[in-house]
Amino acid sequence: MSRFVGVDWGTTNRRAYLIEDGAVIAGERDGTGILSVATGDFACEAAALRARFNGAPMLLAGMVGSNKGWVDAGYVACPATAEALATALVRPVDGVAIVPGVSRVVDGRGDVMRGEEVQLLGAVVAGLAPADALLCQPGTHAKWARMTGGAIAEFATAMTGEMFALLQKHALIGAAMTGDVVDGDAYRQGVADAGDDDLLRRLFGVRAASVLGLRDDADAAAYVSGLLIGTDVRARLRDDAADVYLLADEALGALYAAAIEMTGGRALRVDSQAAFVAGINHLWDLAR
Amino acid sequence: MSRFVGVDWGTTNRRAYLIEDGAVIAGERDGTGILSVATGDFACEAAALRARFNGAPMLLAGMVGSNKGWVDAGYVACPATAEALATALVRPVDGVAIVPGVSRVVDGRGDVMRGEEVQLLGAVVAGLAPADALLCQPGTHAKWARMTGGAIAEFATAMTGEMFALLQKHALIGAAMTGDVVDGDAYRQGVADAGDDDLLRRLFGVRAASVLGLRDDADAAAYVSGLLIGTDVRARLRDDAADVYLLADEALGALYAAAIEMTGGRALRVDSQAAFVAGINHLWDLAR
Repeated sequence: MSRFVGVDWGTTNRRAYLIEDGAVIAGERDGTGILSVATGDFACEAAALRARFNGAPMLLAGMVGSNKGWVDAGYVACPATAEALATALVRPVDGVAIVPGVSRVVDGRGDVMRGEEVQLLGAVVAGLAPADALLCQPGTHAKWARMTGGAIAEFATAMTGEMFALLQKHALIGAAMTGDVVDGDAYRQGVADAGDDDLLRRLFGVRAASVLGLRDDADAAAYVSGLLIGTDVRARLRDDAADVYLLADEALGALYAAAIEMTGGRALRVDSQAAFVAGINHLWDLAR
Repeated sequence: MSRFVGVDWGTTNRRAYLIEDGAVIAGERDGTGILSVATGDFACEAAALRARFNGAPMLLAGMVGSNKGWVDAGYVACPATAEALATALVRPVDGVAIVPGVSRVVDGRGDVMRGEEVQLLGAVVAGLAPADALLCQPGTHAKWARMTGGAIAEFATAMTGEMFALLQKHALIGAAMTGDVVDGDAYRQGVADAGDDDLLRRLFGVRAASVLGLRDDADAAAYVSGLLIGTDVRARLRDDAADVYLLADEALGALYAAAIEMTGGRALRVDSQAAFVAGINHLWDLAR
């Protein structure tokens, strides 16, 4: 029998699954992200978590393995297979292992992920996405991964979500960005306007539209979201408007799906939690 | 004899020139931008300024004519001639006039300027730029104006400078953006990387480069500046790599000039203060 605790330990949240022979039999979720744990307290925090699951061994993934987490678990270079990740696990204490991140360097330009790799590999292992596919994980730093033969062949990160938050909180146009962000006319106008590859100008256009009364301020946030997500999607589908397997929550997934369809691609939704469980279980099996 | 005070009254600074028959014979500059003047105090503040120039009549330009300034002087639509602006002056009190801004609306998308129009028209009047030319005023909200027959035929605004400030102060990558921004290898790498029209990804790349040790953090600010200015310049010169008449201070002008040359254009520097004086004097002559 295989029994362990798979943990998705991110920056602001932590989700733990007690997994027995591949099936989740218990779990917990809380706000104990790495930002809420003082340096030096990770061993204690992990021991407490483990105790709540009767001392089962643990496999951790996410920012807990960053230089601001428990220990820096490093990166496995692309193309990254599940086998390579399982071989490179870092073990800070007995009975606990941490999954490394994945890096990519091309022509001196680099990219990194940490935590997303488990979902990506798991989506393929669980049959939620084909072994050769384009996967997208929207968010603060949106990830786009090209899977080849079930491995993470290459990937790109765009600071789409962080940019939205920056603009809303701190930009001149942020004062108008108070409305709901939903897939409607304003959002789709933003996606369409992303088509001219002139983001810095279109963002100032939000201010001009407000001053000149061309757009209701209530629509500004949705328009800017469309501009940013449209810019992200268009850059990724520029050479190949493909099927995109989307690992996202309902709201953000709906926005990305609309932008992908408008750009000529096809969006297919994947349950990201199921993908994580399948991925962490696969790594656990490989590492035993 | 023509004698008046031309005032460039912006958001954070104010510059006044006593102009006699087209020549500046006195002036002052201070930090009395509109943000430092309480609503209702503009008449008093203007009267004090005027008194220091022995009661000469005044012609004001800039944000003093916005809805956050003394009175909203409105906008003249493109194509905007000096004659149209002179006809549309707004006179809040006897002996004082305010120059309106310029607006442009195409296919429901708008743009606005306020203050820059005086420099643009003045550059042509003074012979610092041809009557048919592309002019650029870098800054928080960079303006690019196409002059035709000496009129402002069309223009575009990009939030280039504001975006740099937002990223430096508030983004995850901002922590690394502490180095000097100069025209060097890192800056030019940023301009070159702007060529793939993938700004949101290249910005995250600053984080990845830092984590993977691919770029010295001291170079991050210059690289991001190159990315943003390169993105701005490329969008503007995409269809026509033309001569660009640059109205900018030395430091920012050098950065834009480098990006313009790298994009296949030619940068020609224009004295923006001389352009303002010529422009405000021309408007004064037309309005008398």
